[in-house]
Amino acid sequence: MDRRSFLKTSALGGSAAAATTLAAPAYAQGKRTLTMVTTWGRGLAGVHDSAQRVADSITTMSDGQLTVDLKAAGELVGAFEVFDAVTSGQADMYHGADYYFVGQHPGYAFFTAVPFGLTAQELVNWYYQDGGMELHDELGQIFGLKSFLGGNTGAQAGGWYSKEINSPEDFNGLKFRMPGLGGKALGKLGASVQNIPGSEVYQALSSGAIDGTEWIGPWADEKAGFQEITKTYYTAGFHEPGAGLSVATNRDVFESLSPAHQKIIELASAEAHQWNLSQFLANNGAALQRLQAGGVKVMEFPDSVWDAFGKASMDVHQENMGDELYKKIYDSAMSSMKASSSWHNLSSGAYTKQRDRVLG
Amino acid sequence: MDRRSFLKTSALGGSAAAATTLAAPAYAQGKRTLTMVTTWGRGLAGVHDSAQRVADSITTMSDGQLTVDLKAAGELVGAFEVFDAVTSGQADMYHGADYYFVGQHPGYAFFTAVPFGLTAQELVNWYYQDGGMELHDELGQIFGLKSFLGGNTGAQAGGWYSKEINSPEDFNGLKFRMPGLGGKALGKLGASVQNIPGSEVYQALSSGAIDGTEWIGPWADEKAGFQEITKTYYTAGFHEPGAGLSVATNRDVFESLSPAHQKIIELASAEAHQWNLSQFLANNGAALQRLQAGGVKVMEFPDSVWDAFGKASMDVHQENMGDELYKKIYDSAMSSMKASSSWHNLSSGAYTKQRDRVLG
Repeated sequence: MDRRSFLKTSALGGSAAAATTLAAPAYAQGKRTLTMVTTWGRGLAGVHDSAQRVADSITTMSDGQLTVDLKAAGELVGAFEVFDAVTSGQADMYHGADYYFVGQHPGYAFFTAVPFGLTAQELVNWYYQDGGMELHDELGQIFGLKSFLGGNTGAQAGGWYSKEINSPEDFNGLKFRMPGLGGKALGKLGASVQNIPGSEVYQALSSGAIDGTEWIGPWADEKAGFQEITKTYYTAGFHEPGAGLSVATNRDVFESLSPAHQKIIELASAEAHQWNLSQFLANNGAALQRLQAGGVKVMEFPDSVWDAFGKASMDVHQENMGDELYKKIYDSAMSSMKASSSWHNLSSGAYTKQRDRVLG
Repeated sequence: MDRRSFLKTSALGGSAAAATTLAAPAYAQGKRTLTMVTTWGRGLAGVHDSAQRVADSITTMSDGQLTVDLKAAGELVGAFEVFDAVTSGQADMYHGADYYFVGQHPGYAFFTAVPFGLTAQELVNWYYQDGGMELHDELGQIFGLKSFLGGNTGAQAGGWYSKEINSPEDFNGLKFRMPGLGGKALGKLGASVQNIPGSEVYQALSSGAIDGTEWIGPWADEKAGFQEITKTYYTAGFHEPGAGLSVATNRDVFESLSPAHQKIIELASAEAHQWNLSQFLANNGAALQRLQAGGVKVMEFPDSVWDAFGKASMDVHQENMGDELYKKIYDSAMSSMKASSSWHNLSSGAYTKQRDRVLG
């Protein structure tokens, strides 16, 4: 049967049912499974959820043409091995926090969060409007990745401590879990900083391997169970004012996909960013109340400690300025942040102040 | 040719090239154009952009199977006629601000913004986590629509005035453009409130048909050119603390689409919400500086005026509480807002206060 006679028979002259049947083999041939590794233990509240949401959205929107096979940390490679797994082609994509990969390039910190840096909304403004996305891509070109924001935890809590923090000196000798540039800043205050994957933090804290930890915020921290080990909790932190999570696809794999499927990966990631941020922000308030009801003491760092955080953070940024791309990303992010925050204070900030005053 | 012999020939025994060729007719048959009408004049900054983004994302992600034909206000129906056009099936979907349709049901106000209501982030938290999306759908079931959030302007500015507002009495007799429940609240202060589509506001203001107007914020307002007519501008407003825009599809049309195409419409809308909000927030700061450089006087309402806004807004809400669904939506939104805002103050709010203090 030649093509012309087929078209005449089935598509032009044939029934709709026949045409549907005929299409099946081409669909089947185009199907592809992408393996997604993550920096999260299976089921880790919020962070695993956003990886799963990206995977499900891709599968549904592509009508099953792209199926994402999600492997949690340890199921194919370890949490901190996902970057190398995807750049090498062992896996097709990862979902994770890019600041775990400051060893590959310190500029990756900005696509999660940097100390005294951007809030979640400021990150979004920078990423989609002021060049952040393009800089993420510039980093990706170096390592063979195509990256998009694909989750956000919001401003992270100061964390769990074995003792109260009344002065910067209290960090001296403290064994503390904090990844990224925030951890490097804490090191300048004398802390012994460790980087431990999320799914291993509970064990480290309960065994005394660390004296304290930050993880995410009340809701995810409660699910992780840290309140069973220590009762001193600091709310606002300096280290991750709005922590983005990333979806990075092996660049050769990404470029082999159709424009439709590329756009599906991009928008599944972006939508997960918005949804995931709302998940944390909607759940944290009630979780904090439950923690307090369970005997957790909720604290804020005193100004002297914030001052020390600020100086240490600026020192860490300065140390990286020798790297041209780091400086380019820093300047871009901070310039966008200043523009965003000036308007925020005049509009949303001024409004909520009046709302609190008028409605009480 | 019976089905069995075709499968044997082309899919199982045939070549890949043949299978690809055979698929074409089914693709061609599945192509569909959806007509999207909007409440925005063509090219209106930000708001038309988000409609266009939704349309483009749907077309790209569906690989052209769904093409969206965007008709700006007046091209098929007028700005305020889009609701009826979609419920009646004259158009397939609309992009617009749902508070234009408080006449159809006052509950629609919540899916744009209500006076003294939710900020953009609080709206997102409520919509995706605390039942807002389901309530939007409950309204949609009444009118034969399937609605999703599909844009956001952020907190809207207080607006443009022919004179300074020093007390609530200054609103008495003022001819002012403000849609939705905010407009009803302003009416309680004695203003003569009018609802005018965005693309007609400049003409109304310059002709003196109105004494003042709110539109969106510095960036969109500057593009609209209001600074050419009046020089008194109030930044924070009470009426739309985070104005969501909606994408509503005729429910029969939506249900006739495949699950993949339904999800594509849902995520194209959600992504446009995040992107559009960042567009306004990233551009407003610089626009305000330009307006000031051009001689615009930037003001804030005094507390006495905010108090009057608050009382009038609560009165408007109370008047609608007799409607069971309105009360259900109000209670749901306000309960979510309280939970969200308590955590916001402790985390992102506390952080930015320290950031401003430490970095200056």
